[in-house]
Amino acid sequence: MHDVRIDRDRLWNSHMAMAEIGATPGGGVCRLALTDPDKQARGLFVSWCREAGCAVRVDKLGNIFARRAGSEPDAAPVMTGSHLDTQPLGGRFDGIFGVLAGLEVVRALNDAGIATRRPLDIAVWSDEEGVRFRSGTMGSGVFSGRVNLEEALAMTDESGLSVRGELARIGYDGPEAVGGFPVHAYFEAHIEQGPVLEREGITVGAVEGAQGARRFRVTVGGEEGHAGTLPMTGRRDALLGAARMIDALNRVAFTHDPHPVITVGSIFVRPNSPNTVPGQAAFTIDSRHPHAATLAAIDADMRAACAAIAKADGLTLHIEQTSDSTPVAFDKACIASVRAAAKALGIPHRDIYSGAGHDACNLSHIAPTGMIFVPCEGGVSHNEKENAKPEDLAAGAAVLLRVMTEWAE
Amino acid sequence: MHDVRIDRDRLWNSHMAMAEIGATPGGGVCRLALTDPDKQARGLFVSWCREAGCAVRVDKLGNIFARRAGSEPDAAPVMTGSHLDTQPLGGRFDGIFGVLAGLEVVRALNDAGIATRRPLDIAVWSDEEGVRFRSGTMGSGVFSGRVNLEEALAMTDESGLSVRGELARIGYDGPEAVGGFPVHAYFEAHIEQGPVLEREGITVGAVEGAQGARRFRVTVGGEEGHAGTLPMTGRRDALLGAARMIDALNRVAFTHDPHPVITVGSIFVRPNSPNTVPGQAAFTIDSRHPHAATLAAIDADMRAACAAIAKADGLTLHIEQTSDSTPVAFDKACIASVRAAAKALGIPHRDIYSGAGHDACNLSHIAPTGMIFVPCEGGVSHNEKENAKPEDLAAGAAVLLRVMTEWAE
Repeated sequence: MHDVRIDRDRLWNSHMAMAEIGATPGGGVCRLALTDPDKQARGLFVSWCREAGCAVRVDKLGNIFARRAGSEPDAAPVMTGSHLDTQPLGGRFDGIFGVLAGLEVVRALNDAGIATRRPLDIAVWSDEEGVRFRSGTMGSGVFSGRVNLEEALAMTDESGLSVRGELARIGYDGPEAVGGFPVHAYFEAHIEQGPVLEREGITVGAVEGAQGARRFRVTVGGEEGHAGTLPMTGRRDALLGAARMIDALNRVAFTHDPHPVITVGSIFVRPNSPNTVPGQAAFTIDSRHPHAATLAAIDADMRAACAAIAKADGLTLHIEQTSDSTPVAFDKACIASVRAAAKALGIPHRDIYSGAGHDACNLSHIAPTGMIFVPCEGGVSHNEKENAKPEDLAAGAAVLLRVMTEWAE
Repeated sequence: MHDVRIDRDRLWNSHMAMAEIGATPGGGVCRLALTDPDKQARGLFVSWCREAGCAVRVDKLGNIFARRAGSEPDAAPVMTGSHLDTQPLGGRFDGIFGVLAGLEVVRALNDAGIATRRPLDIAVWSDEEGVRFRSGTMGSGVFSGRVNLEEALAMTDESGLSVRGELARIGYDGPEAVGGFPVHAYFEAHIEQGPVLEREGITVGAVEGAQGARRFRVTVGGEEGHAGTLPMTGRRDALLGAARMIDALNRVAFTHDPHPVITVGSIFVRPNSPNTVPGQAAFTIDSRHPHAATLAAIDADMRAACAAIAKADGLTLHIEQTSDSTPVAFDKACIASVRAAAKALGIPHRDIYSGAGHDACNLSHIAPTGMIFVPCEGGVSHNEKENAKPEDLAAGAAVLLRVMTEWAE
C-alpha cells in the first residue's frame, strides 16, 4: 500500500476537463440529466475507464459501472461512485468528485501494479440532482430497489420528454438489469456542500449519516382573468396564493428547534402572462431534518398553512408528496474504516453529518456504506461559485483508495 | 344604408374558423405574437380580404392594412381593426372580433354594392397582448409614434428571439413605413372583457376612454445555495423575497379608493430547481387606474413596499418600468357617433369605460377615435372560457358599419 500514490494533478486536471462539458459563463456547470452535456460527460468517463483497463456496463436506467477486475473475479465488488449531472447553475465538484476520485483510485492502483481480491466498481448514477424530472437520486434509487424501474422510465420533464425516451436518445438505455447483484461495500466521496470542515480547518469528514427529506409538489388553482378589467375583490389569483404559501412555509421552519430546512426552489405559473391574473401556480417544497418525528411534524404544519391560505383566498389546493427519504445512518464499520484511513494517512478528520441526500443513502439500504467528505469553499454548493482545493480532493481520494483496498481484501 | 345588412352567421363562422388556429384543448386559443399560429391567422385574414376585393399592405412591423377603395382614393381612410394575437390561454373573441367586424363591414358593403367616398382600412396590429415580448400594443404604438420602431424590432422573447427575426421568419417584415399616413378616424370593436354590459342586459357600449396603466419588471437577486445544507438563517432566497413582495403589492391596491388593479401575472426564477435556494426571481407588475395621480401614487407605494422587503431580506432589487399608458379619453364626436348609431338601429346601449388597454388608445393620439364594446359571458376574458353571443357580435358590427360609413362621407 505504501507504494500507491494518488496523483493530485491528474485528479485535478480530470475535474477541469469535465468542467468544460456544460460550462456556464459564470464559471459553473449546467449538465442536466440525460441532456447532450450529460451524454458527452458519460462518453468521456467511459473512454477514460476503458483506457484504465476497466470493463464498462450500462443498465436499463443508464447507470454506468466501470469494473477493475479482482483476482477473484466473481466476488461481490467494492463499489464507489456518484453522479455526473448538475444543477442548472451548478458547480464543478458536486457529484463529479465522487466519480473521478474512483477513477483516480483505479489509475493509482494500475500505476503501482496492485491487484485486489474483489473487483472494484465505479458507478455513475443517473439523475442524482432530480432537477429535470423532479425526482432525485433516481438511478441509485432503482438500483437499491427503493424506486420502481417502470415508474422512473415513465417520468417526464416540463416539456413532456420521458426518461425512457431521453435515455434512448443519448444512447444510454443499456442492456443490463438494474440492480440484482450483491455489493460488498459502497463508499462515496463528495464535497461537504456545507461550511463545517472549512471553518474548522479539517480535510476529511467521516460521514455518520444524512438527514431525512420529504419533497412535495403543490398545485394551487384559481381563475384566470384580465389584469385590467377584473376587480381586485373578485379575484382568485393562484400566484398570489402561492406567494402567501411560500412565505408561510418559510415561517414554519422557524417554529421548530433545531430548524429544519424548508425550500421552495421552483415555481411554474399558468399562463404566466403579465396581463392575466394567474389561473394556476405549481411549486415544489424540499423539507429536511435529521429526525423523522420532526419531518412528520413539519409535514403537517406545512399542509395546514397552505390549506388555510387556499381557503381564505378561494383557491383549490393539491399537495402531492414526490419523495420521502428517511434519515440515514451509515454502516459503523465503514465509518470506522474512513476514520482509520484518514488517521493512518495523517489527514485531519472529524465525524460529520450530511445535510444533503446522496446516492450513498440509497445504497446504504443494500450494502455496508460510508461517505468521505472534503471541504468546499465557504460551504457554497448548487452554485456556479462552488470551489474546492486540489490538495483536499487528493486527500479524499487517498482515503477512498485506502478504504476500498481494505474492503476488497 | 337601409339595404346594408350584417350577416350574423357569416361573422360567427369567420370567428369559428379563426378559433381553430391555435385552438387549445380547453376550448380557447393560444396564438402568441409572431408564432406559427399568428402567421397562419394572418394568412387566412389576408386571403379573405383579397377575396373581398381589398388591397393588402404590410409595414415594417408586420401591421397589416386591408383597404376597400373609396370613390376618392387619395382621401384619408376611415380605419378599424384590432389584433389576431392572444394570451397563452386566451379566448376566441378578444382582438379577433375587431378584425372580423371590420371584414364583415366590407363584405356587407360589397353585398349591397355601396361605395364610400373615403377608403376603409382594416388594420391588424402586431403584438397587442404583449405576452411574448412583454410590451403590449406594440404595432399600434409604433404606428402612432409612441414607440420607437428600432426599439420594438430589437425586443426579444424569453428564448432570445427578436421581433425583427420573428417577423422575417413568418414573412411579415413588410416593405411599408410604419405610420406616416393620415387617418381620418379610427373605430375599434371589442368584447367588453368586463361584467357591466351583460349584467345590465345592454348590447353595445359607447366607450368614453380607458384607464391608464404602468407596467414594471422587478428583478430580485439573492444567493443560490444547497437546499439541504444551507441553514435557514444564512439564506438570501430570491423567490421568498419575491413572494413577500407579491403579497405586499396586492395589499397596496386595497389602500387606495377606488381600488386600482395590481397584478403580478408572470414570474421567472433562476435556477428554478427544487433543491436549490433560488438566486434570482423576476416578475412583472401590471397596475391600472383611471386617474393619473393615483397611478403615480401606487407607483411610489409599490416601490417602497418592494424596497422594504429587499432590505429586510438582504436581497438586491431592480425595478424597470416597461410601459406607461396615461389614461385615455376618446374623441367626443366619435363617442357621439357610436351612441347615435346604436340608437338609430334600436340597439340597447350605454356609455362605458374600458378597464383594458387597446390599440385604439394609441390611435387616439393621432386620429379621432372611438370604440364599440359588446358583452362577453360573465365578463370573463384572458381565459379559455371567454365567450360571446353571435347576435351581440352582429349588433356591434352593425354599429361599426354605420359609424364607418358616416365618417367616410
